[in-house]
Amino acid sequence: MHVRPAGVHNRLMALTAATISELRSIVGPGKVLQDDEDLITYAYDGTPMLENRPRAVVIPETVEEVSAIVRLANDAGFKIVARGAGSGLSGGSIPVEDCVVILLAPRTRILEIDEANLTATVEPGVITACLHAAVEERGLFYPPDPGSMTVCTLGGNVAEDSGGLRGLKYGVTHNYVMGLQVVLPTGEIVETGGKAMKNVAGYRMTDVLVGSEGTLGIFTRLLLRLVPKPQASEVIVAHCATQRIAAEAVAGIIAAKITPAMMEFLDQMTIRCVEDFAKIGLPRDIGAMLLMEADGHPAVVAEEATQIEEICRRAGAQYVARAKDAAEGLRMKTARRSAFAALARVKPTTILEDATVPRSLVPAMVAKVEEIAARHGVLIGTFGHAGDGNLHPTLCTDERDAGEIVRVERAIAEIFQASIDLGGTITGEHGVGLAKRPFLEGLVGPVGIRIMQDLKQVFDPNLVLNPGKIFVPRPRREGRLPRTQQEADQIARQMVAAS
Amino acid sequence: MHVRPAGVHNRLMALTAATISELRSIVGPGKVLQDDEDLITYAYDGTPMLENRPRAVVIPETVEEVSAIVRLANDAGFKIVARGAGSGLSGGSIPVEDCVVILLAPRTRILEIDEANLTATVEPGVITACLHAAVEERGLFYPPDPGSMTVCTLGGNVAEDSGGLRGLKYGVTHNYVMGLQVVLPTGEIVETGGKAMKNVAGYRMTDVLVGSEGTLGIFTRLLLRLVPKPQASEVIVAHCATQRIAAEAVAGIIAAKITPAMMEFLDQMTIRCVEDFAKIGLPRDIGAMLLMEADGHPAVVAEEATQIEEICRRAGAQYVARAKDAAEGLRMKTARRSAFAALARVKPTTILEDATVPRSLVPAMVAKVEEIAARHGVLIGTFGHAGDGNLHPTLCTDERDAGEIVRVERAIAEIFQASIDLGGTITGEHGVGLAKRPFLEGLVGPVGIRIMQDLKQVFDPNLVLNPGKIFVPRPRREGRLPRTQQEADQIARQMVAAS
Repeated sequence: MHVRPAGVHNRLMALTAATISELRSIVGPGKVLQDDEDLITYAYDGTPMLENRPRAVVIPETVEEVSAIVRLANDAGFKIVARGAGSGLSGGSIPVEDCVVILLAPRTRILEIDEANLTATVEPGVITACLHAAVEERGLFYPPDPGSMTVCTLGGNVAEDSGGLRGLKYGVTHNYVMGLQVVLPTGEIVETGGKAMKNVAGYRMTDVLVGSEGTLGIFTRLLLRLVPKPQASEVIVAHCATQRIAAEAVAGIIAAKITPAMMEFLDQMTIRCVEDFAKIGLPRDIGAMLLMEADGHPAVVAEEATQIEEICRRAGAQYVARAKDAAEGLRMKTARRSAFAALARVKPTTILEDATVPRSLVPAMVAKVEEIAARHGVLIGTFGHAGDGNLHPTLCTDERDAGEIVRVERAIAEIFQASIDLGGTITGEHGVGLAKRPFLEGLVGPVGIRIMQDLKQVFDPNLVLNPGKIFVPRPRREGRLPRTQQEADQIARQMVAAS
Repeated sequence: MHVRPAGVHNRLMALTAATISELRSIVGPGKVLQDDEDLITYAYDGTPMLENRPRAVVIPETVEEVSAIVRLANDAGFKIVARGAGSGLSGGSIPVEDCVVILLAPRTRILEIDEANLTATVEPGVITACLHAAVEERGLFYPPDPGSMTVCTLGGNVAEDSGGLRGLKYGVTHNYVMGLQVVLPTGEIVETGGKAMKNVAGYRMTDVLVGSEGTLGIFTRLLLRLVPKPQASEVIVAHCATQRIAAEAVAGIIAAKITPAMMEFLDQMTIRCVEDFAKIGLPRDIGAMLLMEADGHPAVVAEEATQIEEICRRAGAQYVARAKDAAEGLRMKTARRSAFAALARVKPTTILEDATVPRSLVPAMVAKVEEIAARHGVLIGTFGHAGDGNLHPTLCTDERDAGEIVRVERAIAEIFQASIDLGGTITGEHGVGLAKRPFLEGLVGPVGIRIMQDLKQVFDPNLVLNPGKIFVPRPRREGRLPRTQQEADQIARQMVAAS
């Protein structure tokens, strides 16, 4: 890839008044924010204990404006962090040093719903739940449903490859991205993929970009796949005295070849917090609760719901019931979706992790999390997606208590290691961002990190886009061609000496 | 990425007697084939008009042996082409110059079927239909079903990201690959992914490797996702006087929110060839035939099959029928699967393409292919997967007739351009390989090609694995660090002069 001249890259402050003025001329004067209240607002995302003010916030309207900003960043040497709703939980949209935040949340148009090809074309700022509503009106369905779906943007979902409650049956965001319009870190505008459902022409560029956490490109248009909307659904709840009973019920449902649209798990602490928060009559003394949903054809849903109930009873659940109507089902699902908010009321700081293990090892992982919590004397509520092994151990703490935070950090590190030891991963749906960066090498090894660093350099030779997220990028000095005789001499001397 | 010393790379014949002897010491003397009959056998794959003899064929037993061979290739400067069953249709496993073929077809063990986590772990040489049988016995299902499924290997399927008849409802190979054990082009052994159903830790390495056509790594173990086996299925056939009627039926089925497991289209020429070949009583005078399958819960299948029949009749199909039992359904599907073999009997050379367009544009594409065939005076039968827009225009020709081959090549180029113009792709499931390499840039543009070349260099700095497939790789000289003072001087002089 062509490497632009380095110029002023290494200056402490690349964002000079002249550069700001160039930004203004690209997007218009009112679209470059520099007031304190703006810089403070965009210093955060949904991740606790991380903040950093950007130098400016820019609101582009067109892909050409995004491209011009990125080209300017390459020339002037500042960094760019693209941002949707800022609801991420791994620090992916926390501003990096000397950066401009590009705000994509205002780009909220649904450009097309193509009913013949079952696709939706949207701008990146469309809120996930808005797309749900728009397509469901036409009998179609966009399955990815991250917990934050009423506030998060589809561009952010694609950048983080967001999951959600329906992952077991329907997959996650990457299963629904057919194509992207993207501004590369070099400023070039490219289109990947298309409406053809099968496409094996060359390396899978769309798939490289999905989940790249804002480090390989800025998405300016998304082509998403839709499926027919399930005609019916039933919500089933099971109260279990112990976690073992819940685990047996989950294993029994999978063994019966049933794939529920949802199979959620809440531990005792989470149940109590949800009850305190939502007051829906949950028993405070049970060890675990399962919340399941069967969806599809009415006949299948009826049959599967009955089977699910039977399997839960046989496993020993003390109370098994079906939502009596759609409204009650929705209330029950909303209660589950409130788990994070409910746990967040316990203590000032809430750290929601997303360690994910093979489904059969969920009971082992839950037990391990409890053991870690007890040993470090920290408060952890665990809930999550039992069907796909994606757990949310949630640490309730107080960032002002330095001693406790040290114990919390130790517990988190042990949770990640436990997940890796069980053949799982450090992040099932939130991304690595800044929060999980120290743990990635433990999962993918040094070769994995090296390849990711190399990939980053291929796309982003000047390290302009969200550098330092996921992994520490290779210093720009390495692995590029020398630009002057002197530089070439120096590199050659080093290499010859080293060989 | 660390670049090994170039050594003898540019010699005409890197595979010296000494290197052969090193290969023998890695895999054992009987596992290095150099007889003419072996070299001729492995000079071909399923692609017409392409052949090239390898210098040797090597049969490794373990991942360590594969790694040792790849390291030797980096040191000694020869090339490697990994090969499964050699049934590919784009030239992906045609030997490159001065290469050793690594034969993976003998690695046929199914290592594990994990019913709790719904995964299968297999060696790359397992034949696709063998996995189908093994998992279906346990009530599970591996959906990808390429036309060649009774002979092709899963390793080849993953390398080509193979599709098949069930793509519309179930997706293709990449939707079922959860992890890989892979020998990188540098010889390093890495494991990607795992049994956790959700994993967003870093760039999606598994997805970069799937569909990389043997250019980014050699797969030595595959972790595949399974789903519950559909309980029932019904096969429906519809005879249509015109292609317009068939197209209306397909659009009507999608509009009715039905997702058939299969929705196959055959044009008149294909129908006649299949009838000549299989003698199953197909009418020779109809313009198009649809072969559809509904699968899933018996109640749903019954309902959907009835709806499909009604929609076909309403669209004007002259004959609509359901297979009376599973055996007849299988016969009908087998007849469709024989389309390629049937067309291959027409003339000595058969070129099967896989241009793919958005589903709604299948009628436009079929009409365009007919117009191209008529204009160039070439014989093209078209069949394929109407549900996912993946067509197989099949050119029946004779490679000994140089004049006709020129017309055939022109027709193929126009078919690809038509597909691109309709928002489709040059290959839906066969890969680019050598056969479609000249057309890739027309689809992905120069920036797309450049990024792929850069990716190739990241993984394969010495261009050891299957170089020249998909795209012409960037010459090794560019984009790497100088290795000597002299080389550094030279590069710097060129760069300073150019700036």
